Amino acid sequence: MTETNTWSNRFETALNPMIATFNASIPFDIILLPYDIQGSIAHAKMLAKTGIISEEEATQLVQGLQEILTEYENGEFHPDINEEDVHFAVEHRLTAKIGEVGKKLHTARSRNDQVGTDLRLYLQDKITHLRANLRHYQQALLNLAENHIDTLIPGYTHLQRAQPISLAHHLLAYWEMAQRDWERLGDVAKRTNISPLGCGALAGTTFPIDRDYTANELGFNDIYRNSLDAVSDRDFVIEFLNAASLIMVHLSRFSEEIIFWSSQEFNFVTLKDSCATGSSIMPQKKNPDVPELIRGKTGRICGHLQGMLMVMKGLPLAYNKDLQEDKEGLFDSVKTTESCLEAMTILLTEGLEFRKQRLEEAVAEDFSNATDVADYLANKGVPFREAYNLVGEVVKTSLAAGKLLKDLTLEEWQAIHPQFENDIYEAITPKQVVSARNSYGGTGFKEVRNAIEIAKTLTT
Amino acid sequence: MTETNTWSNRFETALNPMIATFNASIPFDIILLPYDIQGSIAHAKMLAKTGIISEEEATQLVQGLQEILTEYENGEFHPDINEEDVHFAVEHRLTAKIGEVGKKLHTARSRNDQVGTDLRLYLQDKITHLRANLRHYQQALLNLAENHIDTLIPGYTHLQRAQPISLAHHLLAYWEMAQRDWERLGDVAKRTNISPLGCGALAGTTFPIDRDYTANELGFNDIYRNSLDAVSDRDFVIEFLNAASLIMVHLSRFSEEIIFWSSQEFNFVTLKDSCATGSSIMPQKKNPDVPELIRGKTGRICGHLQGMLMVMKGLPLAYNKDLQEDKEGLFDSVKTTESCLEAMTILLTEGLEFRKQRLEEAVAEDFSNATDVADYLANKGVPFREAYNLVGEVVKTSLAAGKLLKDLTLEEWQAIHPQFENDIYEAITPKQVVSARNSYGGTGFKEVRNAIEIAKTLTT
Amino acid sequence: MTETNTWSNRFETALNPMIATFNASIPFDIILLPYDIQGSIAHAKMLAKTGIISEEEATQLVQGLQEILTEYENGEFHPDINEEDVHFAVEHRLTAKIGEVGKKLHTARSRNDQVGTDLRLYLQDKITHLRANLRHYQQALLNLAENHIDTLIPGYTHLQRAQPISLAHHLLAYWEMAQRDWERLGDVAKRTNISPLGCGALAGTTFPIDRDYTANELGFNDIYRNSLDAVSDRDFVIEFLNAASLIMVHLSRFSEEIIFWSSQEFNFVTLKDSCATGSSIMPQKKNPDVPELIRGKTGRICGHLQGMLMVMKGLPLAYNKDLQEDKEGLFDSVKTTESCLEAMTILLTEGLEFRKQRLEEAVAEDFSNATDVADYLANKGVPFREAYNLVGEVVKTSLAAGKLLKDLTLEEWQAIHPQFENDIYEAITPKQVVSARNSYGGTGFKEVRNAIEIAKTLTT
Amino acid sequence: MTETNTWSNRFETALNPMIATFNASIPFDIILLPYDIQGSIAHAKMLAKTGIISEEEATQLVQGLQEILTEYENGEFHPDINEEDVHFAVEHRLTAKIGEVGKKLHTARSRNDQVGTDLRLYLQDKITHLRANLRHYQQALLNLAENHIDTLIPGYTHLQRAQPISLAHHLLAYWEMAQRDWERLGDVAKRTNISPLGCGALAGTTFPIDRDYTANELGFNDIYRNSLDAVSDRDFVIEFLNAASLIMVHLSRFSEEIIFWSSQEFNFVTLKDSCATGSSIMPQKKNPDVPELIRGKTGRICGHLQGMLMVMKGLPLAYNKDLQEDKEGLFDSVKTTESCLEAMTILLTEGLEFRKQRLEEAVAEDFSNATDVADYLANKGVPFREAYNLVGEVVKTSLAAGKLLKDLTLEEWQAIHPQFENDIYEAITPKQVVSARNSYGGTGFKEVRNAIEIAKTLTT
Repeated sequence: MTETNTWSNRFETALNPMIATFNASIPFDIILLPYDIQGSIAHAKMLAKTGIISEEEATQLVQGLQEILTEYENGEFHPDINEEDVHFAVEHRLTAKIGEVGKKLHTARSRNDQVGTDLRLYLQDKITHLRANLRHYQQALLNLAENHIDTLIPGYTHLQRAQPISLAHHLLAYWEMAQRDWERLGDVAKRTNISPLGCGALAGTTFPIDRDYTANELGFNDIYRNSLDAVSDRDFVIEFLNAASLIMVHLSRFSEEIIFWSSQEFNFVTLKDSCATGSSIMPQKKNPDVPELIRGKTGRICGHLQGMLMVMKGLPLAYNKDLQEDKEGLFDSVKTTESCLEAMTILLTEGLEFRKQRLEEAVAEDFSNATDVADYLANKGVPFREAYNLVGEVVKTSLAAGKLLKDLTLEEWQAIHPQFENDIYEAITPKQVVSARNSYGGTGFKEVRNAIEIAKTLTT
Repeated sequence: MTETNTWSNRFETALNPMIATFNASIPFDIILLPYDIQGSIAHAKMLAKTGIISEEEATQLVQGLQEILTEYENGEFHPDINEEDVHFAVEHRLTAKIGEVGKKLHTARSRNDQVGTDLRLYLQDKITHLRANLRHYQQALLNLAENHIDTLIPGYTHLQRAQPISLAHHLLAYWEMAQRDWERLGDVAKRTNISPLGCGALAGTTFPIDRDYTANELGFNDIYRNSLDAVSDRDFVIEFLNAASLIMVHLSRFSEEIIFWSSQEFNFVTLKDSCATGSSIMPQKKNPDVPELIRGKTGRICGHLQGMLMVMKGLPLAYNKDLQEDKEGLFDSVKTTESCLEAMTILLTEGLEFRKQRLEEAVAEDFSNATDVADYLANKGVPFREAYNLVGEVVKTSLAAGKLLKDLTLEEWQAIHPQFENDIYEAITPKQVVSARNSYGGTGFKEVRNAIEIAKTLTT
Repeated sequence: MTETNTWSNRFETALNPMIATFNASIPFDIILLPYDIQGSIAHAKMLAKTGIISEEEATQLVQGLQEILTEYENGEFHPDINEEDVHFAVEHRLTAKIGEVGKKLHTARSRNDQVGTDLRLYLQDKITHLRANLRHYQQALLNLAENHIDTLIPGYTHLQRAQPISLAHHLLAYWEMAQRDWERLGDVAKRTNISPLGCGALAGTTFPIDRDYTANELGFNDIYRNSLDAVSDRDFVIEFLNAASLIMVHLSRFSEEIIFWSSQEFNFVTLKDSCATGSSIMPQKKNPDVPELIRGKTGRICGHLQGMLMVMKGLPLAYNKDLQEDKEGLFDSVKTTESCLEAMTILLTEGLEFRKQRLEEAVAEDFSNATDVADYLANKGVPFREAYNLVGEVVKTSLAAGKLLKDLTLEEWQAIHPQFENDIYEAITPKQVVSARNSYGGTGFKEVRNAIEIAKTLTT
Repeated sequence: MTETNTWSNRFETALNPMIATFNASIPFDIILLPYDIQGSIAHAKMLAKTGIISEEEATQLVQGLQEILTEYENGEFHPDINEEDVHFAVEHRLTAKIGEVGKKLHTARSRNDQVGTDLRLYLQDKITHLRANLRHYQQALLNLAENHIDTLIPGYTHLQRAQPISLAHHLLAYWEMAQRDWERLGDVAKRTNISPLGCGALAGTTFPIDRDYTANELGFNDIYRNSLDAVSDRDFVIEFLNAASLIMVHLSRFSEEIIFWSSQEFNFVTLKDSCATGSSIMPQKKNPDVPELIRGKTGRICGHLQGMLMVMKGLPLAYNKDLQEDKEGLFDSVKTTESCLEAMTILLTEGLEFRKQRLEEAVAEDFSNATDVADYLANKGVPFREAYNLVGEVVKTSLAAGKLLKDLTLEEWQAIHPQFENDIYEAITPKQVVSARNSYGGTGFKEVRNAIEIAKTLTT
């Protein structure tokens, strides 16, 4: 520990060194430095504008702060563990550089509103990046979808083949999830983008500050209405972690499917070498590491969410040191979610090749056209539930006979129900089965083309 | 099990009875019945409107469904476990009542879009209730705040006395959290209030349905654009559970404080008999069970959130039976959050009495006016960090001498720094300390009065 | 609320009815009644043995308690919500039955040690049941394994075919997980099976009680050494929830595989009608609901674990009302884990049929024997990593040529490396590939037979 | 990516650089290096012992490995991101050092059993350290307890004063929790300390290896019985994370109390300067950062537990890349739990001073002796519940009169019940109230002295 304590002269003994290390956040909160400098510059300007310090003092402060930022960006700023946190590290460096006037920077401010400001500026910035990542991912999905409108793939429920669908339709389902994620991050941003600066330690300040000014300088849309709330609110962190968890859940669902699809049994996609890895002892292996890792990393983000909820549970007002735990999980979640979106975008762009022929065979070899037989009858006036039961019977008989529906003779059809006519064969080809589902949101080709157009509009 | 299976004739053997019970959701999804009926009525009308069934058939269906709702409301509808779920229970009862035409209701619909519709209608309804609960809670806070603008209470950071504040200001911090909760539920509602009806099992339908019509009938604001997404999306459940977790986290923080405040050591509030309980062996005890239970129930809701995230992780498209697990945790979360808000509102309204005299003594007996001494000097041009260090010294000396700041003589003050004058005494009375923090969002009385007016505007 | 409060005369006003309902645990803790009675009988006997009450009084108490148990078992005991909890419900009923002497039962006891005793007796009982369930499940696995020693199935890593294995070996992996679960529950039981009875509200009692006597009567193995710890410890609940979470994680992994295996693509197993369900609109569907539900229910149990950890976080000593939240999640976890084990056991016993022919074809159609080629060369002195690289080359060439390894000519083999000889063909047949892995714990048939014998020994 | 791929020649294209970084675990798994070397040395020796390689080759391998360990310990080993993981990094370095023979090390081994071995060796080592940390913490508690047998402190339930207790008794409750933690880690170790080495990728190996030999060399107590289970089991990680969560929950409870105790309202302890921190703007503040941080860090560990459960949920056998996510959360949990135990031990040893006089006053100023009045009457034959009700009445009257129980005259006592006699005054002094609770596990001084002796025996 430094000879003089970081805080007041009230303290006589230095911190126990282990405790100093235990308390320090500087090893991880240093990444907030650019935001801390940004906030301090706005604060210094405001102090001058309101006459709390002189213009000249403000100029010195701003210049000193900018120099520290440059040092940091050049990799020349290495505060030691005894600086405790990024705020003290910057303040001490500032005073070392510009002398006594540096000690005026902390007027009308507390670390409590300062760290809240830093964290919100950081997250606001990262949300913007993540939304851009989501847009790239959506674009990759859209590109793939446009190439695969006519590619059919089995649609599943319960991982059982249910009805054939357009591959584009399947891919667009993930586009929709990403669209909700994008919107949700927008809602999180609304509640992140609010300035706590000027709320002091907990109760506001006695100085004639101008909170609107600093909020404007820093690009905040609003300012907190209550100082106690401002310094103890971490809702925005939790809301973000939940939004990130949902992004990961969506990516994990897609990952699960890509893992299936690349198995020998499904064999729907080929993994390209640039996005797959091998085994250390099985030379034939080509492993879908990317989707597996993404699926695995989902747990980590949800864990961070739970961790943060637990930190906040039962905390009295206002600031408590427990809140220092708001950072590492958040930083890791931002980084992980970003890299998972990037990795998935690369995988979609250059790592996957759909095996069209295999898919074409797949949709022709099963009973996933059975619903269409029931619909066929229902269209001719047979109550749906009755039609459904009849078709169940047909499937059973066909399975026993080792036949598919398309292999039944017209006599066999008519023996089941007299309303069957020759057009039943056309009605149950996979292409027709897909084509016929032109209800809004359905997999019919016309609908899918339409959906692609809408998607384009929504993302530009 | 019934002789004939619930589903198609493809099946030859009945379900193993244990498995039937294991699969059945009817014991808990029965509470969706009113929403299921509502959805089916809209669906039946749409089928007629689009000519898929006749008007007369629709009339019969609607009438039958309304009768079933009446039976349910009268406690006369008791489906057994073999009905599997609320959808089959209603369909079977309907066919029993109105005969063959009942079998037409399921045309152009699957249980997958049906249950999604039910769940969204349910949650939409519950969100409206919860937002009303939040408003009642906010009103109770506001009423208390209006009565306690001039009541001072120690403000804390790290549970150490920091600066005295207005009790109203403290209560308004919780008002702000509730306001965010209210807004957040509004955002959840945006993504809940979207109709999946007509998306079928996963791929849309071959019937010429009108999804806008049913969405309108049911009060949805929008319809899902992609059928696969529609039947497999449970984002809205997770988003709700996160919003509910935050409500609970906020209530748990307030609960923690009420528990402190009612301890003999703090002694800030008296618990009224109507909201407290006793001990089975310690006759003197009066326990704050309500806030303790609320604090405890926070864990349960966050647990449900994690449970649901885990259910969704890695699920392939589209519907999987795992999704049946979306219900019990959600239902319990709705009920628990509602009752916690109600209980807290009652506690605030009739269960707490702030002990004003004790509070008045509390704010006068400590060093929580020390920041004001530093501010006093900073206002006279002493750099803040230097002023702060001087005051640290004063506190140390005073503590050693067993004195409070107000007990120092002017000579003693001036020995510390020559700029101290007689007005230092006024500057450090608790009332003045509070009064002086009139920065926006601060605890100054003027600001607090202003905040109350804003709060009133925002909730009406 | 009843006219006279449940607790002391200190209270003047009755509880607000909403608050009374909010506080009451009787709707769910009633299932503890048999354990509560059991504990009270032991306590009454001890009071007599130590002379605190007379033998005659004890006899009356025991008889009254036994009658209440009978009433409960006959479905004739229906305490209302105002009884608050099972303890008061029993005490009040007892006093109603046997008069004044009933009021002596609570001597030297508090609800805090009482509920702790009840909960431990309950869990001890349930752990015994769950361990029996695990044994049934292990037996079902063992039966299947014995029938499938010679059945080959692809072994996977990364869901890519890696090496063929014995199906029995695969099933025995789940046996091993269950064996750990069984042992783990034994460890949980060690820390559950400790008596808190006699620790009073928090500090022990002034009466000359005999805690060893009650512990013995109730089948506890030990007694708590510290009264504060005894009434506030819920480690055993959390430890149990973690053990249950692991059981569920294991079942969910098996479920995932069964879901794959029953897909049309894998087609490794046929689901029997008695354990599968259909679709409401797709007559051909046969869905693996049981494993899907099990997989889904995993989230719920892990959620309960997190909920309980969160309840305990930061709770001061000793008893706090938050602890009432220890029950519902625990009860649900016990019930859910039991029913999942039962359902899985039924599924294994009567619900699955492995398609041997399909499996036989599967293991012959890929490159999962490639490691054996590398091992073949390594056995002849080629460094493993070099051999591995050579085989990678072979696989690439073969894939390009549309050949499997068994289709290469001896010349082709020798062109790759001169050490290949005619015995390479035998070395790479699936059967030989499996057979050769006779390292301890490997899939070699001899090892598998051995493992089955060991498994039998360990479970009897 | 390096020109030649890490894995087989099957691959033609290099990994996309972003994907290479995404996949790599070397930035964090490098800390496993000492364990990886240890495992490889044992493996090399075994290969020689069983004749798979020559003794000379083994000697070269062992020597090369030892040199790499030395390089690492000297901070001279810096593998780059393209090495992918610690295993490849070591293998490549080895081959670079000793040439071709280095390529033989991976014979009869896969990274799947290798990483499992490393992780178990690591955790076994860390568990040993953590148990030592627990012992230091227990010793600090015991030292404090010995000094505070006669110090009285209010005992609480519901944070309401319940009964006075010995401070030593209170501290021993935490000793007991730590003792369970110590035992629990022992149980985790049982299931960690099992060797997967030799299980290969998933199915065992064709080489005549000796798994008992390597297990012995590495200090494992047992070997896995099933190769599939061995490479995919992470139960031990989850079990450890749960044990760590419980340690943290216990520390968080103690932390909560220390935070209360150091508030101005409780004022039970004084924080020493060496373990407290100040505020950046409130010069009088002395904050309990250490317990606040510990309380906060509890969330992080429980989050890691949840994350890992989620990773494992639904994973098919055997190894999947998702398992790479087993490391960072585990490493962080080990480090965090260790440092929290150390920080708390330091706090107890040099950071806290109990304010005896304040505690003495506290236990004399309330009604926490009320139970003893009820017991007094019960001892004279008044049924407990009746006595309890009478005392409730007394408390109410006394409260109204502003009196404590000790202030009542004998006439007043006898007006309540004729059995009260002069010895009631002695019975209700705090010291006597504590002293009288000499039931086993109670707070009576004799019992506490006894408990300290037992604690000493159990930890030596």
